[in-house]
Order: sequence, then structure tokens, then C-alpha cells
Amino acid sequence: MDPQTPVGEIGERALIRHLRSRIPAGPGVIAGVGDDAAAVETGPLTLVTTDVLVEGVHFRREWSPPRLLGRKALSVNLSDVAAMAGLARYATVSLCLPRDVPLAFVDGLYDGLLERAAETGVSLVGGNLSASEDRIVVDLAVLGQADRLLRRVGAAAGDLVVVTGTLGAAAAGLRALEKGARLDADGALVDRGVWPPDGADGLVPCLRAQLDPSPPLAFGRALAGQEIVHAAMDLSDGLSGDLLSLCEESELAAWIEPDWLPVDPSAAALEKQVGGDAFSLALHGGEDYQMLMAVPPDRVDALREAASVWSVSVSAVGQFAAGPPALSLRFGEAMRKLRPKSHDHFAARERRRAPVPEA
Amino acid sequence: MDPQTPVGEIGERALIRHLRSRIPAGPGVIAGVGDDAAAVETGPLTLVTTDVLVEGVHFRREWSPPRLLGRKALSVNLSDVAAMAGLARYATVSLCLPRDVPLAFVDGLYDGLLERAAETGVSLVGGNLSASEDRIVVDLAVLGQADRLLRRVGAAAGDLVVVTGTLGAAAAGLRALEKGARLDADGALVDRGVWPPDGADGLVPCLRAQLDPSPPLAFGRALAGQEIVHAAMDLSDGLSGDLLSLCEESELAAWIEPDWLPVDPSAAALEKQVGGDAFSLALHGGEDYQMLMAVPPDRVDALREAASVWSVSVSAVGQFAAGPPALSLRFGEAMRKLRPKSHDHFAARERRRAPVPEA
Repeated sequence: MDPQTPVGEIGERALIRHLRSRIPAGPGVIAGVGDDAAAVETGPLTLVTTDVLVEGVHFRREWSPPRLLGRKALSVNLSDVAAMAGLARYATVSLCLPRDVPLAFVDGLYDGLLERAAETGVSLVGGNLSASEDRIVVDLAVLGQADRLLRRVGAAAGDLVVVTGTLGAAAAGLRALEKGARLDADGALVDRGVWPPDGADGLVPCLRAQLDPSPPLAFGRALAGQEIVHAAMDLSDGLSGDLLSLCEESELAAWIEPDWLPVDPSAAALEKQVGGDAFSLALHGGEDYQMLMAVPPDRVDALREAASVWSVSVSAVGQFAAGPPALSLRFGEAMRKLRPKSHDHFAARERRRAPVPEA
Repeated sequence: MDPQTPVGEIGERALIRHLRSRIPAGPGVIAGVGDDAAAVETGPLTLVTTDVLVEGVHFRREWSPPRLLGRKALSVNLSDVAAMAGLARYATVSLCLPRDVPLAFVDGLYDGLLERAAETGVSLVGGNLSASEDRIVVDLAVLGQADRLLRRVGAAAGDLVVVTGTLGAAAAGLRALEKGARLDADGALVDRGVWPPDGADGLVPCLRAQLDPSPPLAFGRALAGQEIVHAAMDLSDGLSGDLLSLCEESELAAWIEPDWLPVDPSAAALEKQVGGDAFSLALHGGEDYQMLMAVPPDRVDALREAASVWSVSVSAVGQFAAGPPALSLRFGEAMRKLRPKSHDHFAARERRRAPVPEA
């Protein structure tokens, strides 16, 4: 089939047949694509999560090569399973496609989905195709298995607030997209946007963090077997907002020490070039897909050791404290109230992750 | 909160908190709404299915009271699980909402979801809220458990083509919506549309079949323990299209005897009033959410007996035959080729289930 053929000309039945021919059988899959439901083997405890990417809200077609979009659609769900210390096993893919979308887009999306699934041992087991009027919607449900759960509830006063990796790169990548920088389907830089040739070093890592995030999946899973972490979640809406969620679940307050934040160095370099502020991106910016954890102070060394096995860095950035759910920034002995500024899909006045072009 | 408040003013965090407070804990739910993923107990074999309702494609806001839309969103997924002889246990709800949608709509939708979940022993265990530009998308993933699977593959030449219930009522209900008939949130008739007072008897059953379908869930589940049915699927796209799918999976042909079709009597009465053709709706119309089965002739009596336990009627409507996947209509000794006319989301030229208003 000509890759430029619109899906409206191919038809639902032929498109399903085409996509199905691309999906390999997987371990534990008793009935995969092609039946009313998929039947899969899981442990006694099954994890299920769902996360959606909506065109104009979470991505723009001209910003996201479809292959990277497919990778990201799976990664954001895998991040949720790993943050529960689970092992992702199966995924269903629900696509809503305007009729003029070319086959090449759907195939590119599946390139990324299948590639990421193979990298992570996940089997695609079915899903759903539907038309939509004018926006692409990519909605995945991922099933995983777990022995011991890492939950959002369970943090104790005195636990340190610990994050993996660095923060702010994905948010800096979004700003770089807004300023014209672009990656191609292979992740190579094809447009520097407003950045000068000698000031664009951080562009690829930041764009990559935004378009093709790499959550610390194996590390999250490894925490299931170890009594180190009291509570955890993944960082998707931004540190400030997600930390407040963890505080709400665990019925605690928390403070953050600004100097301790692992601000992503690429983000810092990029923002410096355009007079921006990477600290704010690290504190409030979304889509880091790192882990946020509550760790007793005497277990931080053990955590660091466990993380080094998976080449994951961890940073203590603050501490939980008794009190109603609220956040502070600590400056020496002084505490200043911190209001989360994280992403809210429904608050039209706030910045959106991937704003639509103004009409 | 004022039910007319737009969700954009309420904000994502507050809306999640509100919806969460409405969702009861359920059996087998270890971690429900509020964590990165839900953790649930399932059997060794887990069924997963996903089905989406897109505004303008599958429903119109002015046609579907939100309560009935919530019931239907769950029912269409339950139908898939039952058609595999599974027991539905858990559901995640992924909503994409334009910012101007009032809280009353979301609450109405959850009224229906929670009510239908309670009726069927299903627990809502989480999901996802996202903004969308202008269309509501309701995407559910349902998990179930199964011992023995009823699949689409497995029909044998000579098996009878058997359906449950009557056919065509949901398609007649869609036509009634197009002609102005309306139900309110409680399922009562509030507008007869073009039908005269003395010719509107079939309206409520047909509208109900379209807006709030009742798949034979317990009957499907009961088939797991009995060696009666070789293959099965649910009727969602219309008998002709779905039978062709079953033929493709089982690598068989099939014929249908027109006189044997259980044309829904309400659909027939309604269509007669407006000069329409209920036979065509029964043969091609979508969304019956009945079961389509391949049954050896000597097991049809056993099937009828098993069905009567659940007050489900079954009708043999044709037979599978050796040959490449294709359908025929049988008229006495003559066979006429039958082309499926079922719903194709991507074929813009064909009738859509719930067409958008013409611009």
C-alpha cells in the first residue's frame, strides 16, 4: 500500500489486518489481536494503567515524528507501572484517527510502539481503531504484574524527598519545540530553531527527553524486592504538583531545598541562551518521567547503591514533615510557601504542554 | 459545586478528587484510583479489552443523556468480555473533555458508569483525565477473568450460525434519533420525532437498544463451562460484517437464510411507519451487542436450554461451509453473494453510526 494513502481510503478492516500483520506473538499471550478481548497470563496481582496523548493537548503532529510519538505513548504508561514497582507485560492501543491521516503516520506510530515494546518485553495484545473528526488520540492501557507494591501512600514524616535523574529537560525540550527546534524520526536534530550553532549543545537531549522519554523502568521494578522506599510515584506533571499529590496521599507536608534540585545541565545551558530559567522548569515543568520517592534518611545509601546497579542517579531534594498537605521552599532556616504550578489540563489560563496553534 | 460549572474552571486536580470520592472500593481491588496504576487480583488468565466512544462518531451530546452514555460505554466493553466467556471484574475510564463541558455532564456520565458497574459486579479502578479541543472521548479498558475461552477461531464447516436475541433494534434506534426521537436520562420518551402517537410503540425499545444496550453477559459467561459452542464473538458492527470476521478467523464461508433472521419486532414496526426496511437493519445494522456463535447442529438444543436459564433467545440464521471467507444469502436452493455493509469508521462515504451535523 502507498504510505501516503489516507486511512479513510484504506478502510477499518484492511487497516486492522495490516497492523495485525505487524504485531508479533508474545510470551503469556493466549489470545492477542483479533478476538473480542485479549487473554493474557498475569500474576495473581495485575497492574493496569492508562494514559492518553491527545493531538493539540499533548503533542503536535508537526513537532512529533510518529515513531517517537509511538515510543512516548508506551513509555509514559510503562513509567506508571515501574513507579508501582511492577513489571509491564501487555499493552492495548486505542487509536482515534481523522480520515485524512496517511498510512505512513500510523505505520510510523507502530514502528515506535513495536520498537519500544520489544525493548521493554511488552506484548501488544489488541486495541481499537476509531475515526475522529480532526484530532489524533493515542490511548494505551498497559497491564503489568507485581509482587510488592510501591504506592503513593506510606511516606513518613522525616523521610527524605528523593528523585531519580535530572529534572527540567523535557520541559526545556517543549520550549525548544515552541522556538522551532526539531528532531527527525531517528532522533537526529534537523532544525536548531532560535539557538545559535555554538549554543545548541543541549538541544538534542532536551528534545529527546520531551519526545522520547526514558523512565528508569528496571530501577523501579528492582525496588519491589527491597525494603528501602516508603512511597513512590512517577514525575509526570512536574515535581511541585506531583510532590503535593504524594503529600495528599500520605497526609504529610514537605519542603524542598532549592540548591539540592538536580537541574538538568542541558536544560540549564539551553535556557541560559534564551534568557530563561531552568530552575523553574526543574521545579514545576512536567513530563520528567523520573521517580519521586519517600526514603528514610538511613536508607538513602542503600537506595544509592541499588540505583547505581541500573546507572540511575538519585538526589535528595527535601524532606517530608508532619502537617496538612502543603509545600515549602527552604532557604537556610527560613521557609517560604511553595504553590505548585504544574500542568492542569483543564485550566485554560495556564501553560499547556503542547499548545495548539492560535486560530 | 454548581453542576453547571465548566470543568475548565474546576481544574484537573479538583475534578479527580471529586470523581474519586464517588467511586466505591471493590472486591479484589488492592490499589484503586489515586496511584500510578491500579493493582487488582485476577485469575491466572486475564482478559483485557478496550472500546471507545467518540463524540460525533459514536454519539452526539444532544442525543445521548450522559447517564445512558456512561452505561453504554461500560456495556460495549462488557459485551466483548462476555463474548469470550469471561467475567468482567475491573474497568479504567479515560476521559478527554473539552474545557467547556459542565460538571453535570461528567457527573451524569459517572452516574451511568457507576450504576452499570454495580449491576454487573465491576469495580472502577482508575483512569485518566485529559483536555481535548472540542470533542468528548470516553475510552474504557475492562479487565476480566476466564477459565476457558470462547474465541473467533474454531468454527467448523457444518456448524450453524446462531445469534442471541433480536437484531436491528439499535440501528432502528439510531434512525429514530436522526428523526428527532429522544429519551431522557431515566430512559423515558421525551420526543416522538416524526412518529405519530399511535405508531410509536417501538420507539422506546429501539432508542434504549441504541443508547443503553443490554448484552447477554451472564449467558456468555455461562458458556465457559459447557462444550456447546465452537466459536463466538459479539455483534457490534452488524451481522454481515461480524459474520465475515468470524469466517476470516475460522477460515470458512457462511450462508444466511433471510427468513430465519430474528428481526426485532419493534424495529419492524417503526420502520414500517416511515417506509423503511428492518430486514436490512437486522442484516447490516450495528450495535446489536448480541452474541454470534458457531454451534454444531446436534448441540443447538443444548444451547437453547442453556440460554433459557438466562431468559435469552437463540436463533439459527445460517450455516458455515468450507471455502474462502465469503458470505451468501440462501433463497431455497439458490445462493446469492452477500457483501457486508457494516460500519467502517474510516469509510467516509458509508453511513456512520452517529453522523455529525453537516456543516
